[in-house]
Parts: sequence; structure tokens; C-alpha cells
Amino acid sequence: MKKLINSVDSVVTDALKGVAAAHPSLTVDVENKVITRAGGPTQGKVGLVSGGGAGHEPLHGGFVGYGMLDAACPGEVFTSPVPDQMLQATKAVNGGAGVLHIVKNYTGDVLNFQMAAELADDEGIEVASVVIDDDVAVQDSLYTAGRRGVGATVFAEKIAGALAEEGGDLTAVAAMAREVNERSRSFGVALSSCIVPAAGKPTFELGDSEIELGIGIHGEPGRTRGPMRPASELAAVALDAIAADIPLDGELLVMVNGMGGTPLIELYVMYEEVARTIAARGGRIARNLVGNYITSLEMQGFSVTVCGLTDQLTRLWDAPVDTPALRWGR
Amino acid sequence: MKKLINSVDSVVTDALKGVAAAHPSLTVDVENKVITRAGGPTQGKVGLVSGGGAGHEPLHGGFVGYGMLDAACPGEVFTSPVPDQMLQATKAVNGGAGVLHIVKNYTGDVLNFQMAAELADDEGIEVASVVIDDDVAVQDSLYTAGRRGVGATVFAEKIAGALAEEGGDLTAVAAMAREVNERSRSFGVALSSCIVPAAGKPTFELGDSEIELGIGIHGEPGRTRGPMRPASELAAVALDAIAADIPLDGELLVMVNGMGGTPLIELYVMYEEVARTIAARGGRIARNLVGNYITSLEMQGFSVTVCGLTDQLTRLWDAPVDTPALRWGR
Repeated sequence: MKKLINSVDSVVTDALKGVAAAHPSLTVDVENKVITRAGGPTQGKVGLVSGGGAGHEPLHGGFVGYGMLDAACPGEVFTSPVPDQMLQATKAVNGGAGVLHIVKNYTGDVLNFQMAAELADDEGIEVASVVIDDDVAVQDSLYTAGRRGVGATVFAEKIAGALAEEGGDLTAVAAMAREVNERSRSFGVALSSCIVPAAGKPTFELGDSEIELGIGIHGEPGRTRGPMRPASELAAVALDAIAADIPLDGELLVMVNGMGGTPLIELYVMYEEVARTIAARGGRIARNLVGNYITSLEMQGFSVTVCGLTDQLTRLWDAPVDTPALRWGR
Repeated sequence: MKKLINSVDSVVTDALKGVAAAHPSLTVDVENKVITRAGGPTQGKVGLVSGGGAGHEPLHGGFVGYGMLDAACPGEVFTSPVPDQMLQATKAVNGGAGVLHIVKNYTGDVLNFQMAAELADDEGIEVASVVIDDDVAVQDSLYTAGRRGVGATVFAEKIAGALAEEGGDLTAVAAMAREVNERSRSFGVALSSCIVPAAGKPTFELGDSEIELGIGIHGEPGRTRGPMRPASELAAVALDAIAADIPLDGELLVMVNGMGGTPLIELYVMYEEVARTIAARGGRIARNLVGNYITSLEMQGFSVTVCGLTDQLTRLWDAPVDTPALRWGR
């Protein structure tokens, strides 16, 4: 295993020190692993908190900032944060209008966020929770009961974050995150495994010309293994899986996401195939993201996330955002 | 070789179609491989053109937009673009105030940009050229006479682009790019090789615990091979090499750049070590970038680029920029 780290035990805290050093717009409690916007909570604004295992960067810490999250709490690599971290994040962003927890559907995350919500309630903070479960690949998996939560998390954090920024109340902001989740579906493909630092070896093994269709973001098995095939066919496989669940027509927000080890030139090749396939099925990609947004350490591969837009969703997507990993107009 | 492509021959054009589909702010001539800002040249503004082999994305196409480049022309993977492409780009961005070519110091790029400048001159367009040569690792290399041009290209494109945007004339904009280059040095480390699609196999081989110190962005050999070591030691090696050439004190702009296959969590670990090492030597990182900005396909590894700031450079660095890969306030 070759990784740019000091030791297996200190990967997450060392990286958090780097995040703190690189981004003066963030306040980082390295010891307790909580990232918040510098300057404390915004009074009267709903606070948005997300979290989950590390190893998916820039998710979630890279999305803390104006127009998106107020706080993120990473666990160890691919390990849920604990309720105390989530509670600390919740208290730190409470501006009196309540706090929304955006939770990817993995058993540990869901249980711990539930407990954190109860603890926050005990302290008089109103919390709403939305569980993201957009991955169409499998019903249950190694880490999950029900569908896994993946790329739609980025959309939900951006769009609900915009609504919170313009003054939406907790009920409305939670409903918006829920709507984004319901309108979104994802599918991922792995060309290679990731290596969890503490494990020191690949999570799974693939042959020289073998790929995993429907991969999870922790390397959980997908639907099937098969031979490598051209980008055009991979786009069709991913979009067929998504189209079985939601319509691909109308105005769409589409992300072609890299898993961490895939070069950008390949993601643009994939985007072209995804765009072409969607157009052929009568859809129009009105907004898009191409790049590494929700990763799996050094895994090679991609995922596609599709969200059916409404006028309101488009307007909130276009609203200003200013975070380390997503940024436009302000 | 597993890559998200349709065929080895169409990688660059397929990716350019993806760039065109993803970014309405850009106009892409896929056939001739020229990317320009949509809407044509800005009258009275110096035009900035860069280019070089593909495989380093987001460089250069991802840096076309307000406050940075006016055009980029990619060649095939790791292959110089031809003079005709460069001429087309030059003509497309000529707003009557002349055009600056920002050229990474690789023999093919330098010769072809020279020829393109002569052709543009024949058509009455004034062209200035700045050759970037910031890599301290080796004097001459597989592709270069003199030092290689790497990370400082990103800084030069941003800072000279800002000066052009605020009305600097061709002489001033070229001098600014030259000053950035003179004040900047880089050093790279590879943990794994890249695979050029047309070659179909790794450019070089490294043992399971072996790394290449001083790697070039095409996988050219560096200074030495050695055993893998902790991030803290790698930061010291890179900064020792840079400090032999430029002082590490004062206010600095520092980029910790991923080579394409390294996860962001590791780049933040490296950034922390780089920041700590620079602080110990009396420098202060006033501005930074952490991420994939000048890559080598799926290579794992990182590079560090350091630029000594002045008040003017800081001001121009902070000026608004709006490109697919670099974006802040406007």
C-alpha cells in the first residue's frame, strides 16, 4: 500500500489539519472532527449538518460554506461518526431556527444521527432528518438496509442549503431535501478497488479486464461483474438502471462523478456518452457537474446521478454557493 | 488497461465533446481541438492562449474563462498541439490588443508555439510568448532542454489573466507571466505510473514500496527512486529541492496538486505537512490551492508549487475568476 499519509491511525486527523490550514473560511475542531463555517451560526437560519465516514472527500467537509452546509462531521475512513460529534455539530450551527441532518442511508450513520437528534432535542434544539437513498444498484447491501445514499447527497446539500440561505423554515428545508432525494437516482461502476488505510489491502479484487457494475461507495458489491466495455455501453448500463426507477425526460440535473482515481479526461468522455444517451431518450440536461464530488479513496470508476428538475429546483441550484469544493456567483 | 473511453484513437475528441456539452460558457471546435470563451474575443483586451498535450486536465481547457485564459488548444495525449491549432486559437481571441502565448517548456510545445507566433505575425497579430520552466527536479529531460514547465503554469495563467482582464497591455501581461514563472518552483513525486491510452501499458514500473522523486508530468524520470516514506518526509524532500532555488520565507502562494489518481484526503494530509514545513522555515502561506489542477492521467502522486508573493501578485490572485476548474467571486 502506497499512500500519502503519515500513519494509518492519523489519516483523518492529519487531513483535517490540512483542511483547517487551507481554508480560513472554515473552523475545524480537529480533535472532535467537526468542520463548521467560520464565524459561528447564522442567527435565524436553519442549520444544515451532514456527516459520514471519511474517504469520500470533498463530501462532506468540502461543502461547508455559504449556500450549502453549516457543518460536517467525518468519522474514521468508511466509519460512521459518533452521536457526540453530530450533537456538537448540531449545537454549533443552531441559529434558533432548527437544524437539518442530511444522512446517507448506511445503518451506522442512520442510527447515530437518530441518537444525536434525540440528544439535541433534550437540549431544546429542533432537528429534522432526511435520509438519502438514491442508489438504484441494490436493495440491501453490506452496510445498508434499503437503497444506499450516494450522489444525490450533493444535490440535496446544495439545493436545501440554498433554500435555508434564503430563509426557508425547517419544515420547508427538510421537505426540499426530501424532494431532491425522491427525484434523484444514481448508479456507479468500479474499474478498480479502493484500499482502506487500516486494512492495507484492496477491499475487493477485480481481474485485468473486469469491472463491477453497481458498486457502492465503500466498495460494496454491486449487481454483477462483467468485462470492461466502451464508455458508451457503460453509460447505457447506468442509465438503463436509473431509467427503471425515474423518467429520463424533461429537464435534468446530471452529475458524472469520479470515484477518486479516475482522471478528468475520462469523466468528460463519460459525460458526453451520458448526455448523448439522455438526449436520445428525450431528456435535456439543463444543469451538470463533472468531477470528483463523492469519492471512494483511490477507486477508479464513475457514478451517474440524475435529478428531475422543477423551476424551483433549478433556481435553488443556480443560487450562489461558496464552499471549497463547489462555488459560483455571489 | 481499463479506462472510461470508447477507443484509444478518439479519447481527446470524445472528451472535448463532453467539455462542450458540460460548459455552455465555452465554445469548442472539436475537430480542430480549440477551446475558447463563448461569445468571441473581448475587444481591447490582451488574449491569453495556452496549450499542450492532453492528459493534464483540467489544464488547460478548464482554465478558459473570465479572469484567466481566452483559449486552450490540446494536442493528443502527452503530444504537442500543432501550429495550426495555436494559430486558430490566437486569431479567435485577438481583440486588437495582442495575444500572449503561455507555453510549458517542452521542446515540441516551444517549437510549435514559435511557429504559430510567426504565422500570427504574418497575419498582423502581435504575439508575445512566455515559457514556463518551474520544475526544479532535473535540468534536461526526455522531452525538454532546460527545466520542465509544470505547476507554475496555473499561477501564471491566473495572475496574468487577471492583469489582462483589468486592461494591462501585452508588454505588461507578458512581464507579469514571466515574473510569476521566475518567482515559482515545483517538485513532483509519483507513487504509480500513468498509462498513455495509445501505449496501453504503464509508462514506467515501480516496485510495491518504491516511489519516483522529481517525476515529470508525462512520467519522465526524476532525480531518484527510493522507498515509500511518510508524508512529512515527502514534504521535506520536495521543499528542500525547491528551497535550493528560491527562498521559502515571506508570503507565499502554494499549490499541493494531485497527479490525477490520488484522493483528496491524501492531498490534505500533504498540504498540512507542506504548511508545517514552510512555517518552520519562516514562510507564511498566504494563498493556496489543494486539488487536481495539472495532472498526469491516472498517476498517483503529488506536486508542490511555491510562488513568492508581492502585493500586486496577491491582488491579482484574488481578482475574480470564473472558469470550469477555478472560480471565485465576480
